[in-house]
Amino acid sequence: MHGAVLYAPGDVRFEERTDPKIQNPTDAVIRTVATCVCGSDLWDYRGINPVEQPTPFGHEYVGIVEEVGDEVKSIQPGQFVIGSFFASDNTCPNCQNGYQTNCLHREFVGAEGCQAERIRIPLADGTLVATPTQPAEEHIPSLLACSDVMGTGWYAALAAEVQPGDTVAVVGDGAVGLCAVIAAKELGAGRIIAMSRHESRQKLAREFGATDIVVERGEEGVARIKEMTGGIGADRVLECVGNEQSMQQALNSTRPGGNVGFVGVPHGVALDGTQLFYSHVGVRGGPAPVRQYLPDLIDRVMSGRINPGKVFDLELPLSQVAEGYKAMDERRAIKTLLKP
Amino acid sequence: MHGAVLYAPGDVRFEERTDPKIQNPTDAVIRTVATCVCGSDLWDYRGINPVEQPTPFGHEYVGIVEEVGDEVKSIQPGQFVIGSFFASDNTCPNCQNGYQTNCLHREFVGAEGCQAERIRIPLADGTLVATPTQPAEEHIPSLLACSDVMGTGWYAALAAEVQPGDTVAVVGDGAVGLCAVIAAKELGAGRIIAMSRHESRQKLAREFGATDIVVERGEEGVARIKEMTGGIGADRVLECVGNEQSMQQALNSTRPGGNVGFVGVPHGVALDGTQLFYSHVGVRGGPAPVRQYLPDLIDRVMSGRINPGKVFDLELPLSQVAEGYKAMDERRAIKTLLKP
Repeated sequence: MHGAVLYAPGDVRFEERTDPKIQNPTDAVIRTVATCVCGSDLWDYRGINPVEQPTPFGHEYVGIVEEVGDEVKSIQPGQFVIGSFFASDNTCPNCQNGYQTNCLHREFVGAEGCQAERIRIPLADGTLVATPTQPAEEHIPSLLACSDVMGTGWYAALAAEVQPGDTVAVVGDGAVGLCAVIAAKELGAGRIIAMSRHESRQKLAREFGATDIVVERGEEGVARIKEMTGGIGADRVLECVGNEQSMQQALNSTRPGGNVGFVGVPHGVALDGTQLFYSHVGVRGGPAPVRQYLPDLIDRVMSGRINPGKVFDLELPLSQVAEGYKAMDERRAIKTLLKP
Repeated sequence: MHGAVLYAPGDVRFEERTDPKIQNPTDAVIRTVATCVCGSDLWDYRGINPVEQPTPFGHEYVGIVEEVGDEVKSIQPGQFVIGSFFASDNTCPNCQNGYQTNCLHREFVGAEGCQAERIRIPLADGTLVATPTQPAEEHIPSLLACSDVMGTGWYAALAAEVQPGDTVAVVGDGAVGLCAVIAAKELGAGRIIAMSRHESRQKLAREFGATDIVVERGEEGVARIKEMTGGIGADRVLECVGNEQSMQQALNSTRPGGNVGFVGVPHGVALDGTQLFYSHVGVRGGPAPVRQYLPDLIDRVMSGRINPGKVFDLELPLSQVAEGYKAMDERRAIKTLLKP
């Protein structure tokens, strides 16, 4: 089979790779129906995370089950399935507490590269969720979005404890930030402020439920949010970038007693204890426990209630994966969907 | 009148001071019934916070109202009152959100020194809460505790979102940590682990509701908490110290998806964004909005349900305030109550 391999910053190749096989009795092998490029893949593509050796890449997927190991009980060949980027047993105490991305037996599904024609999924029973029926073609991009960006936006809103009627600000207008707008709306936010300076992303944010757009950043962005919220700040702020500036912007835009949910993978972020103390702001972040939300999100997608697949503004054959990365790196595309 | 003045580290004097007067029409002046020394006063007494000039000290008080300004409506002369260390109008958006210590018009009551025979209280209507009747002598220490340490322990538990049945660990065995044990018990925690290596404090922690005592600190303390919680950590951890070691101990003792409430005033504390991210731990801290909890806490004290006044293991006449500081500095006393 074929798949994407990152050789060096800027150098992604589509090449022949070994066919994945059942290695453990809890594994499944799926035939990929769609996969995609994540904003977090760009950290490596841009050389910010070091690339030590040729590495199979990608961690988002939907597919059809081809084969399952002897101990797999709930997942069967032929099912259309979605899973998270972390495999989880879904039974350990951390999973039962709803934090499957901190499963005591977690494995990173992306370790073998999901931008490929076939993928081995460890802990298939705990990781994969089958759709109730074979989904319509039009729902596939949104189901794929649920495997990471929609699940991550959802977690951002839950980590920030969004309540009905809240004023919510979203820092970051990438796919996760845009999905966080959907999440805030679904959780009943009264006002949703998307912080974006790109016209196409502003438009999509509005379509997803943003009521206001703020183009200012940093201290000016904070001042604008304060101005819009009677001087105190937003009730909840969803941080979907992961650098020092975006985190400061999020913390400073939040009212005393409000919350920041942070899902941008932190790069060089530190929080000053004294500042956090006097702000009275609550903070929770982490890799989203997408598995927890999949049944609910699948239902919202298949019932037509949400359409996060709109974040894919470029679709390419998997063989053109290199162009998929390039378009996102150059910000010509929000997110690239790849079809084997 | 007389009151305490801190001249330099280790040098507290009881001396003649100007009688407080109504300065603004929203002020009240109270005659102090009891005041005390706070663990946070020791930061200054020990020279960790600089002492620039002779400074009236103390910020905890209960008293009888002597006089009120023209605009004071709900507080009347003769009432027995308790208030927080921050004066608040109790009407601004931050107050309405329950964060009176972030009131847009807050003033630090301790600025004029509450270890004194009389105290001016700004924003009296928003700051002071009168007891429904004149309290019995035996309740006075507990009511005094509500003006700071009990209110702060209560906030630690709420900031950590303690739920019925939770396993709660408390870092710090000072008066605030001990009151945090009371709070965890009142909020229904199933297991309360007090981290303490002082026998008298362990005993009081058990009396207040601690089910377990852990004497280990730092990494060993974390390992012990993990061992007691099936390897994952406590659901909620209440940080009641405020230094780097205690904060790390708190963060590392919390399970994924759990919470840290931190109320020790931070001294040199920084949180690493990456560590916080992968921990999935939620964090909220700050100066406790004691005003919010006073009506409820007064009720719990006067009905005999809680007895936080037991943290006072030394009672002295106000004139011996210097010995009160010394006993706490040398850890001979948990907390000193002072009577004019």
